[in-house]
Amino acid sequence: VANAVQIIETKRDGRELSGSEIDWFVDAATTGAIPTYQVTAMLMAVFLRGFTPAELARWTAAMLHSGEVLDFSDLDGGVVDKHSTGGVGDKVSIPLAPLVAACGINVPMMSGRGLGHTGGTLDKMESVPGFSPQLDPSRFRSMVERHGLVLAGQSETLVPADRLFYSLRDASGTVPSIPLIASSIMSKKLAEGLDALVLDVKVGLGAFMKDIESARELATTMVGIGAAHGVGVTAFLTSMDQPLGREVGNANEMRESVDVLLGRGPEDLTELVFELAAEMLVVGGVATGHADALATLHRAVDSGDALRDPAALTDWSLLPQARSTKTISASSGGWVARCDAMRIGTAAMRLGAGREVAEDEIDHGVGISVLAKVGDEVRPGDPLAEIAFNDDARLAAAEELLADAWTITSEAVTPAPLILETIR
Amino acid sequence: VANAVQIIETKRDGRELSGSEIDWFVDAATTGAIPTYQVTAMLMAVFLRGFTPAELARWTAAMLHSGEVLDFSDLDGGVVDKHSTGGVGDKVSIPLAPLVAACGINVPMMSGRGLGHTGGTLDKMESVPGFSPQLDPSRFRSMVERHGLVLAGQSETLVPADRLFYSLRDASGTVPSIPLIASSIMSKKLAEGLDALVLDVKVGLGAFMKDIESARELATTMVGIGAAHGVGVTAFLTSMDQPLGREVGNANEMRESVDVLLGRGPEDLTELVFELAAEMLVVGGVATGHADALATLHRAVDSGDALRDPAALTDWSLLPQARSTKTISASSGGWVARCDAMRIGTAAMRLGAGREVAEDEIDHGVGISVLAKVGDEVRPGDPLAEIAFNDDARLAAAEELLADAWTITSEAVTPAPLILETIR
Repeated sequence: VANAVQIIETKRDGRELSGSEIDWFVDAATTGAIPTYQVTAMLMAVFLRGFTPAELARWTAAMLHSGEVLDFSDLDGGVVDKHSTGGVGDKVSIPLAPLVAACGINVPMMSGRGLGHTGGTLDKMESVPGFSPQLDPSRFRSMVERHGLVLAGQSETLVPADRLFYSLRDASGTVPSIPLIASSIMSKKLAEGLDALVLDVKVGLGAFMKDIESARELATTMVGIGAAHGVGVTAFLTSMDQPLGREVGNANEMRESVDVLLGRGPEDLTELVFELAAEMLVVGGVATGHADALATLHRAVDSGDALRDPAALTDWSLLPQARSTKTISASSGGWVARCDAMRIGTAAMRLGAGREVAEDEIDHGVGISVLAKVGDEVRPGDPLAEIAFNDDARLAAAEELLADAWTITSEAVTPAPLILETIR
Repeated sequence: VANAVQIIETKRDGRELSGSEIDWFVDAATTGAIPTYQVTAMLMAVFLRGFTPAELARWTAAMLHSGEVLDFSDLDGGVVDKHSTGGVGDKVSIPLAPLVAACGINVPMMSGRGLGHTGGTLDKMESVPGFSPQLDPSRFRSMVERHGLVLAGQSETLVPADRLFYSLRDASGTVPSIPLIASSIMSKKLAEGLDALVLDVKVGLGAFMKDIESARELATTMVGIGAAHGVGVTAFLTSMDQPLGREVGNANEMRESVDVLLGRGPEDLTELVFELAAEMLVVGGVATGHADALATLHRAVDSGDALRDPAALTDWSLLPQARSTKTISASSGGWVARCDAMRIGTAAMRLGAGREVAEDEIDHGVGISVLAKVGDEVRPGDPLAEIAFNDDARLAAAEELLADAWTITSEAVTPAPLILETIR
């Protein structure tokens, strides 16, 4: 007979849990058969002792099977999703999902909300009047069947174990654990019934993972979980030292996303969207290789297939807009050596574009347009950023952070590559 | 502002907590200002990361001050208690407290109940009809004033933090942690308002600490906590490979305890009672040294001062008695090399003398008389033990354990010393 204390003790002492012990514990936690104080003791033991690959695969499987698991195997075309570990200005999902769907891939994408210095895809989508992120399972399915894509909030019926663990980790000091992060992400993505998954693991100043080694470990861990579940996972490690694209906020990130689909997005954002999308086409079986995939994607943009109803998405007057703007200027000339994603993301949060705590309300109209990025040459007085704001006190808080967000040097700077590594 | 998550993270990462962080956490846990799932995450982090001596002293102080703290400084004579980490047949407190009190020491002793293979002083005392272990603080105090001793249950008003931590540790796999054990014991003992404390740290087959190193670490840790609180602590490491004395059970341990006070107790039990008591007299300031203390103690026994009302305690017909007895005999002759305290203690528990789970009822009349101990010579057919039982199924379970509790060798065996080390 499984016993919660004995299972906790096994992990506490660094010994390997059996598959049935893991299944029992995750199920008992999810159903409330064991109290939350036993769950957090276990989470801390996992934090400090880790999981073997076999334990982690089973733990993720137990989480995945704690609720409904979607099945799109009857659909034509591959079922592929993309997930990012989160960064500043990371609106990739919004242009990527329709672009990939236009090329014949089914994208059942469930996204989250932002907290702290990073934004959330759902918050950005909610800039669009009438967008509703909560879909019941049958509506979620019919959207995938009809449009080849859906971009919605996490369903209540999927992976209830993750909702419990996520809230308890937040309250028990067990958030930054690679096995707990990897199982949280992968259980939710695997519950979408995917054939393959493309991961964007951010690394740098504005990312959860500050160094390449920990980003690589997280990526490798998630690729391993995918393999154990028979789902091909490709992980891109991408730089998050500076914001992605030029827009940080909600409505302004929606506009920039549409720009990508119109072929006029900023270079770095466009590059990342196309590289991630190309991989999805290859693993989803609609392109023979990288070059073929890129050609297909460019055709989808050039033909307008990626943006079926451009009028509905280019009437910016429908989007919320901030009351005023203020420009931040360079005090000296030279080349931008640092454009700090953490400071800019936190400044956007202080403006009201993000949440300090989960209960905060979002102001969708405010944001920061980043006008000078790493490698750009600036003269004294040139604009570094434009702040769109609604509240003077919030503006002041944002300005204080932005005052030290750029470093300008006297020598030319070559920006580092955006995509650092690919792990399959 | 203190924050529970930040405090947990600090300990999780092996960094030292400040005094005010410790005070805040213990207070918030005790008052219920933070949920139990944060408390167990902390307990697991402490289990795996440990405490520095400064942290442990402060943690213990915070526990100690979570409730009422007794003060006997106005009484004549030293205030000294003894605590044992628990063993099989360990009834030392019962003869020791009146013996020491008869010599002028105040003994405000709060004891616990037994669980598993070890018995509890309160359970043994409850063999006596009319004994009630729950005293309110004023009655507890007046007993010490009048008799120089009280032997009662843990007061509800003392160290509420320990009651919470103890129950959560039991349920969260965080019991066998030296800092958590040491702070639990010491907070309760320091709350008794002691001048000095004598500890009996058991080590061996029937003890919580199986090896001398961990027993020494626990003892040293508790001596250090005492020093940080200005309370002199002497820790004896004593052998618990075989039961202490000859009686294991409740009513039968009461009888053996009175035998010690009548000067006719078994040798090992008498030795330990006198050695612990002598130390209490020395640290309590009523004896100039060990020899003087022993002489005082022997006078107290010989004069009858240690047993003021012998008639009330030697009418054994008032104690519960088991229905039947059964003798376990040696199958071969030789010398006893092992008399396994764990097996005998567990057998007594199965008979009904102890508790498998905290809710179990005690049968005070059942028990085991150990008739052959390490070093004794036995012939084939000689009795090894006599089982007093009330239930045939329980007898069978006990017999199964006892069948393998003795090892008899063909060469003479010299028993190891009972007192292994003294740490001050």
